[in-house]
Amino acid sequence: MIKVGIVGGTGYTGVELLRLLAAHPGAELTAITSRKEDGLPVADMFPSLRGRVNLAFSAPDKVDLKQCDVVFFATPHGVAMAQAPELLAAGVKVIDLAADFRLKDQATFEQWYKIPHTCPELLEEAVYGLPELNRDAVKGARLIANPGCYPTTMQLGFYPLLKHKLVDAGSLIADSKSGVSGAGRKAEIGTLFSEASDNFKAYGVSGHRHTPETVAQLQRFTDQKVSLVFTPHLVPMIRGMHSTMYARLSKQVSNDELQELFENEYRGSAFVDVMPFGSHPETRSTRGSNMLRLALHRPGNGDMVVILAVQDNLVKGASGQAVQCMNLMFGLDETTGLTQLALLP
Amino acid sequence: MIKVGIVGGTGYTGVELLRLLAAHPGAELTAITSRKEDGLPVADMFPSLRGRVNLAFSAPDKVDLKQCDVVFFATPHGVAMAQAPELLAAGVKVIDLAADFRLKDQATFEQWYKIPHTCPELLEEAVYGLPELNRDAVKGARLIANPGCYPTTMQLGFYPLLKHKLVDAGSLIADSKSGVSGAGRKAEIGTLFSEASDNFKAYGVSGHRHTPETVAQLQRFTDQKVSLVFTPHLVPMIRGMHSTMYARLSKQVSNDELQELFENEYRGSAFVDVMPFGSHPETRSTRGSNMLRLALHRPGNGDMVVILAVQDNLVKGASGQAVQCMNLMFGLDETTGLTQLALLP
Amino acid sequence: MIKVGIVGGTGYTGVELLRLLAAHPGAELTAITSRKEDGLPVADMFPSLRGRVNLAFSAPDKVDLKQCDVVFFATPHGVAMAQAPELLAAGVKVIDLAADFRLKDQATFEQWYKIPHTCPELLEEAVYGLPELNRDAVKGARLIANPGCYPTTMQLGFYPLLKHKLVDAGSLIADSKSGVSGAGRKAEIGTLFSEASDNFKAYGVSGHRHTPETVAQLQRFTDQKVSLVFTPHLVPMIRGMHSTMYARLSKQVSNDELQELFENEYRGSAFVDVMPFGSHPETRSTRGSNMLRLALHRPGNGDMVVILAVQDNLVKGASGQAVQCMNLMFGLDETTGLTQLALLP
Amino acid sequence: MIKVGIVGGTGYTGVELLRLLAAHPGAELTAITSRKEDGLPVADMFPSLRGRVNLAFSAPDKVDLKQCDVVFFATPHGVAMAQAPELLAAGVKVIDLAADFRLKDQATFEQWYKIPHTCPELLEEAVYGLPELNRDAVKGARLIANPGCYPTTMQLGFYPLLKHKLVDAGSLIADSKSGVSGAGRKAEIGTLFSEASDNFKAYGVSGHRHTPETVAQLQRFTDQKVSLVFTPHLVPMIRGMHSTMYARLSKQVSNDELQELFENEYRGSAFVDVMPFGSHPETRSTRGSNMLRLALHRPGNGDMVVILAVQDNLVKGASGQAVQCMNLMFGLDETTGLTQLALLP
Repeated sequence: MIKVGIVGGTGYTGVELLRLLAAHPGAELTAITSRKEDGLPVADMFPSLRGRVNLAFSAPDKVDLKQCDVVFFATPHGVAMAQAPELLAAGVKVIDLAADFRLKDQATFEQWYKIPHTCPELLEEAVYGLPELNRDAVKGARLIANPGCYPTTMQLGFYPLLKHKLVDAGSLIADSKSGVSGAGRKAEIGTLFSEASDNFKAYGVSGHRHTPETVAQLQRFTDQKVSLVFTPHLVPMIRGMHSTMYARLSKQVSNDELQELFENEYRGSAFVDVMPFGSHPETRSTRGSNMLRLALHRPGNGDMVVILAVQDNLVKGASGQAVQCMNLMFGLDETTGLTQLALLP
Repeated sequence: MIKVGIVGGTGYTGVELLRLLAAHPGAELTAITSRKEDGLPVADMFPSLRGRVNLAFSAPDKVDLKQCDVVFFATPHGVAMAQAPELLAAGVKVIDLAADFRLKDQATFEQWYKIPHTCPELLEEAVYGLPELNRDAVKGARLIANPGCYPTTMQLGFYPLLKHKLVDAGSLIADSKSGVSGAGRKAEIGTLFSEASDNFKAYGVSGHRHTPETVAQLQRFTDQKVSLVFTPHLVPMIRGMHSTMYARLSKQVSNDELQELFENEYRGSAFVDVMPFGSHPETRSTRGSNMLRLALHRPGNGDMVVILAVQDNLVKGASGQAVQCMNLMFGLDETTGLTQLALLP
Repeated sequence: MIKVGIVGGTGYTGVELLRLLAAHPGAELTAITSRKEDGLPVADMFPSLRGRVNLAFSAPDKVDLKQCDVVFFATPHGVAMAQAPELLAAGVKVIDLAADFRLKDQATFEQWYKIPHTCPELLEEAVYGLPELNRDAVKGARLIANPGCYPTTMQLGFYPLLKHKLVDAGSLIADSKSGVSGAGRKAEIGTLFSEASDNFKAYGVSGHRHTPETVAQLQRFTDQKVSLVFTPHLVPMIRGMHSTMYARLSKQVSNDELQELFENEYRGSAFVDVMPFGSHPETRSTRGSNMLRLALHRPGNGDMVVILAVQDNLVKGASGQAVQCMNLMFGLDETTGLTQLALLP
Repeated sequence: MIKVGIVGGTGYTGVELLRLLAAHPGAELTAITSRKEDGLPVADMFPSLRGRVNLAFSAPDKVDLKQCDVVFFATPHGVAMAQAPELLAAGVKVIDLAADFRLKDQATFEQWYKIPHTCPELLEEAVYGLPELNRDAVKGARLIANPGCYPTTMQLGFYPLLKHKLVDAGSLIADSKSGVSGAGRKAEIGTLFSEASDNFKAYGVSGHRHTPETVAQLQRFTDQKVSLVFTPHLVPMIRGMHSTMYARLSKQVSNDELQELFENEYRGSAFVDVMPFGSHPETRSTRGSNMLRLALHRPGNGDMVVILAVQDNLVKGASGQAVQCMNLMFGLDETTGLTQLALLP
């Protein structure tokens, strides 16, 4: 059994890790830290776990995470970088669900996240944990930078088109929509029920941290300079993410060829479902599951390809993807503990 | 493997059966019927099942349900009674999620459901499938009447008090609230998003079918005549049910004694969670799981006991309970395939 | 034009006052205070008011509220009592939307609100601002205690029955449900969208502040000792409140007589709509309006009367009721500026 | 008083017309037809109108609409074209909220709406009822084609850019999101609460009727050939519409110049609110009001302008716009009866 520690289990990615790992046949929850909730049984905060998770939160100084095989950081940006070096040195693998190791370029990181990076020497080693595009590297990794939720959809949506040089990489657009849980479990007015319900709005339109992350990763697959306009929106639903992506074709290609290309690229990926051409995937078809669903459109048979991608932002967009990486890092089948069917309705 | 047939899989209890049974280690989906959707792959209607359920709907006359070990009826009232006799005669066990066999009294059935009963001879044999109060009978049953969703909460809430003669059975009140999926997957104006969202209302206050069912079952546990005022309401949420139950104490009893009594009664029941005295269970703590959670209150330390009970109306209130019965009927552990943790948030 | 000041306009009752008063033909918004938002245009915080409310928030010390004719306190409990004496002395009328003056008994206030009362000498004078049951007193008042949202529904529901001695006052039950805006515009985890959406729960079941307020008011109408079990619940909707009330008949009375009694009592009340016997009022039928709708039921024609009452908790349950009081205090027609039709759907 | 008739008042645009017209100081509701609901008081179907609208639905053959000054058609496509000629001949003005007269080209209409046009001779005369871009024509019109909800946002968003030849008209993209009420009050499974809540999806991505309507109207303002990719999505909210529009600059222009241009174009339009550059308008800031709010962005200061536009799809997107046209047609101030402030929260 893999001995698992979680740092910061009081947020939504934290409780989602607990849900997935409590039922994982190859993992054993051994420690969970929270400075503020020291001593509180996890199931008192999250009654959904009553009778199934018997751990209590521990203050960080009361628990030795170096006894774990792997430690997940479900923390704000900046926490993992402070603790990762010591854990790695002790032979513990680290999976960071925040952004500390997502950007290879330190300056870009500091520009967008407004904090100094305290262990830039690990940036090169850190593996970007998107198994579908990076499976071998993940298998061999000690330190995983779990991708952002939006970037997961954007990369899996644009990748086949860029790889095969079918579209203009310089004019990509992703119009993305996220459920409110993406904003985290923080006491803030903007995400109160009475503010976010029965409402829809964009945010961060002039610039968002997930743009540089996505551009840097997509750039790996093309020689053309990637340029992306990314527009996130807030949807009055708890879980779910939908990216509507626009790419302009630079070559003649039929719809059948496009479809085949996507199916081929993701044939070996259990968690990417390429739906029939012209489908409209719904976020709820992934609710609570680690699946990402994709579909292609070609409005008016013009030169614009529209790619629709949906996922559960807390599973494939965060904690499920992290567990998927853990499976690969420890030689388990990639799907172990991740076969939950979506909750519909 | 138990060979399972489903009649009427296009509704919400149907797709929930599919979700649970597709992941059940001891069951094998072998047939699913729908007159209207003959030939349609199940996963085309419910994309959440893509890649996991490969069955297609069959017209009833194209499939031999007598090859199954058990057949679930996730159909409107009146369908199971038409087919049950033949299936039972062929040695197939039957679990009806509708009301056909819930009431022992034929006249009461016909009064409330407005249809004649076509096999009253089976009413006596049919076992009311609430395992917590009826476990042995369920184990030996050929024909299960799966309880209504509201009655499940009301019986598990009032039972310990009635059994121990602590309250006035003649003045019970249950003020219950259900998510909209309880109304089924039917094209109706009243349950449109734009009608039911951001709204709250009672319905059926003057009389509801679940009253006679609940009264008849509760009467088994007391000599006093049971009288119940039951008020159902519609909540703008998909899944979830909350019953707030009021019973007047007829004996002196301390809060600790009440709590102990409930804990003792449900100690052996894996799916009933008695929370600490004074807790406020939330419906979401059961979302997607087969758990029912209970808590007791005594406002102002007066003579009124308030019992709060929550469950997922589609799982413990319907399809999960049906699978729980199946497990018992086939000698499996009661919790087999039913250990999903609730999806929170 | 009545010169109006608002203390504390950054919460939901505050912005609702702004919406109503900005369109009120007899009132003129002249000042709005907020310590924290000094200088911020109101419409920057609430873009719905852009182009219609040109005021900015002022720090309390920068504005002379004594120039107003009336000041509304849309503040936490305890603020109005600190400022009311000085305003009243200056001839300014005061309407407190919080609880400072709702309870005549100082000890009860301090027990439930956990703060000392700083001007108990005003408790006697303060008029409980429920015009339907207190219209003449409201007309002559200098100081109004605007009722709690739940108590408004409970009093209007039980009053006719108590007044006519038809029910047992010692066993009243109110099972009430409120939209989330009732919890206010405060940064708290419990009312985040991801916590409160797709969820239902009770709270404060063992004891809630609105119980003593309601009991004290209802006691005015009966010689029998009033006893009330009150159970509030949180509904995943923004606005709306539904009380389901249970009273046991102590006299023989027909349904027609009950109905007539309610219609007679509320004939002169423009904002109480007695629906036909057996109706199921929906909260949305009052969304954004000052209307409260009532309907009566008698389940199984037994001795229990069930009264259903709905209102918009921010209008008739708070700011609309306050404006209704203002109208009466200044000799305007009670309905002035309060004729908005509910927003449906 | 303008005598108003409504054909088909049982849908959402119908009840919204009733809400607006019942409070309109210059209009008098005189007839409302519904074949199915003949004799039913309107307020029995929509209790929000109790006490305020005393009309009953009449079968079409029982009422003489020719006695009206204006008749609104809140009907499915195809109804208005059947009755408009006779009404116009009798001197009655006609406002069609459906699509019968939106497209000047009969063939295009028949291709997209799949019904033959029965009075093509009126297509030329019909005035497209978007007052901000067509005010004078609306004033003189006998027959109004009320715009589609999506096209209203798209035209008001793109118009200033096209008029001033600042962008490439051949690569416009509109990624639009609508609340569920846009689908109408029809018994359908896809818009049930349990299907549409806690979910997000695109629809009609390969082609939607609002594309040809929008393109034809935008073409009026530019010599360049307009090409538009339009992607509608369904948001789990009742009312509200958000269009995120992308246009590529073909000229050098500063953000200040862009902002000034929009402000100038809409200075005289009471119902278009150009927010400060870089704002994120929320749909709820228009809930129940006739306001449309716009804001401009320039991500990364590149050559893409992003325009955000929000409105209430049932008001500015439908019934409010229709009343705005009526006001102009009858010489009233454009804002008469349309000054409701948005309901927030």
